[in-house]
Amino acid sequence: MALIEAEILDGGGAVRLGWSDGVAARFHAIWLRDNARDAKTRDAGNGQRLISLADIAGDIALTEASVGAGGVEVSFSDGHRTHLPADWLRDNRYDGAGEAGVWSPAVRLWRAGHAVARDELPRLQSSPAALRDWLAAIVRDGVARVSGVPTASGSLEEIVKLFGHIRETNYGRWFDVRSEVNPTNLAYTNLGLQAHTDNPYRDPVPGLQVLACLENSVDGGESSVVDGFAAIEMLRSEDRQAYDVLADHPARFEYAGSDGVRLRSKRPIIECGPD
Amino acid sequence: MALIEAEILDGGGAVRLGWSDGVAARFHAIWLRDNARDAKTRDAGNGQRLISLADIAGDIALTEASVGAGGVEVSFSDGHRTHLPADWLRDNRYDGAGEAGVWSPAVRLWRAGHAVARDELPRLQSSPAALRDWLAAIVRDGVARVSGVPTASGSLEEIVKLFGHIRETNYGRWFDVRSEVNPTNLAYTNLGLQAHTDNPYRDPVPGLQVLACLENSVDGGESSVVDGFAAIEMLRSEDRQAYDVLADHPARFEYAGSDGVRLRSKRPIIECGPD
Repeated sequence: MALIEAEILDGGGAVRLGWSDGVAARFHAIWLRDNARDAKTRDAGNGQRLISLADIAGDIALTEASVGAGGVEVSFSDGHRTHLPADWLRDNRYDGAGEAGVWSPAVRLWRAGHAVARDELPRLQSSPAALRDWLAAIVRDGVARVSGVPTASGSLEEIVKLFGHIRETNYGRWFDVRSEVNPTNLAYTNLGLQAHTDNPYRDPVPGLQVLACLENSVDGGESSVVDGFAAIEMLRSEDRQAYDVLADHPARFEYAGSDGVRLRSKRPIIECGPD
Repeated sequence: MALIEAEILDGGGAVRLGWSDGVAARFHAIWLRDNARDAKTRDAGNGQRLISLADIAGDIALTEASVGAGGVEVSFSDGHRTHLPADWLRDNRYDGAGEAGVWSPAVRLWRAGHAVARDELPRLQSSPAALRDWLAAIVRDGVARVSGVPTASGSLEEIVKLFGHIRETNYGRWFDVRSEVNPTNLAYTNLGLQAHTDNPYRDPVPGLQVLACLENSVDGGESSVVDGFAAIEMLRSEDRQAYDVLADHPARFEYAGSDGVRLRSKRPIIECGPD
């Protein structure tokens, strides 16, 4: 989108930029100086910052701002002159953050009846487009299915390899869920499990979990999945006070394993970002 | 500590327990029912909960509470009767949370001149007491030194094995810091690095980092460590408004690697718990 307007505000303290579709945003002089992309400010090879915030005067001002070459050319009161691309500025604008909703636009809330996305492991391994769609479904819904996984312990590593790395824990690289005689975890029993969140006692909590069903020799054993975000949204709309209690007060979690492992954490049931 | 008093309050909604040293705390009927430790409520083998919150009436009340057998024996309006140990109740009391300070009592803030704890790898590997003291120093100060590490790439795995697991990332199981011709990271240059927090673009951020110096063929190369908590405490006491800006507004972080890796995150510079 083309940048068409640059107007210095507040005696050089900020600049107001306008794009051809009517979008406008203010940027502060100190933010622009800190985020300059030229070779004196950032390493050309890796983009990492070469200056310190302490190198920038607290009262730095813009002395000139003009639209040109697909962006804006700005000069600062310390003599620095730099060019910032219009697209980068648009992607990184911070003015008007009040537009943000409660839920990321990338997230879709769902209820019973939702069709969970599904694909085959061999296709995910050979088709980048299929993998992209499958990963996008996980971002959107929080869950997706995959079939065609080899029926061998640890074969879920093949799934993780598609997009990331296994986070090893006290359970090892993976956790074999099986029926045991003296279970140290309810997952080792044939008892039905209620809807739950795994590993709340771990800090940090798991980012994404992979469950692979290798064998089921009995009747039953279905897995059910709940959209916790949808549950939170229901609570938020029906009982804001209860929602606030769960968001504003920490709960304690603890795991005591038979092998001397003891994990504890404390966090609210509902964790919110500051925006 | 001996429990000496149990008094039912609010028509059975809660009980007030008193210990022999004068400590007292209230516990709600619903919390006590949910946290009962008997075999009908929790699996005897692994301590995991066998009942659901939905199984407990919202208006459940205590009908009886008496001190005895190193704890308290309580009866509920649903007929359930259970014994809760005095020590467990004392450890898990939630009444009077207002006592909590800004910083965990386990944390010590420090400034320049602080002597960082130090031990030798072979001693940490052979002495559980030495390992305990060294890990306690990390919890207290956020940092500790270790010498006697073999000068081979990846030997820091020996340190991690003492207490946990390596979290693999796009950099692999460890990151070889070395001088390179076309650096994709400032760590690959011989430029001095400012005080910084590693990997803010990662979600979750690193919990604990291990840096092992294997070889330094030039002058310089000293490492410096800053107590970020002490810096935050200084800011909090000197400029509460600036502290609130950093705690209440998210910042964006990004890493773009040469190998197609792109990591982004958004979080406040200062993250606080709800208490």
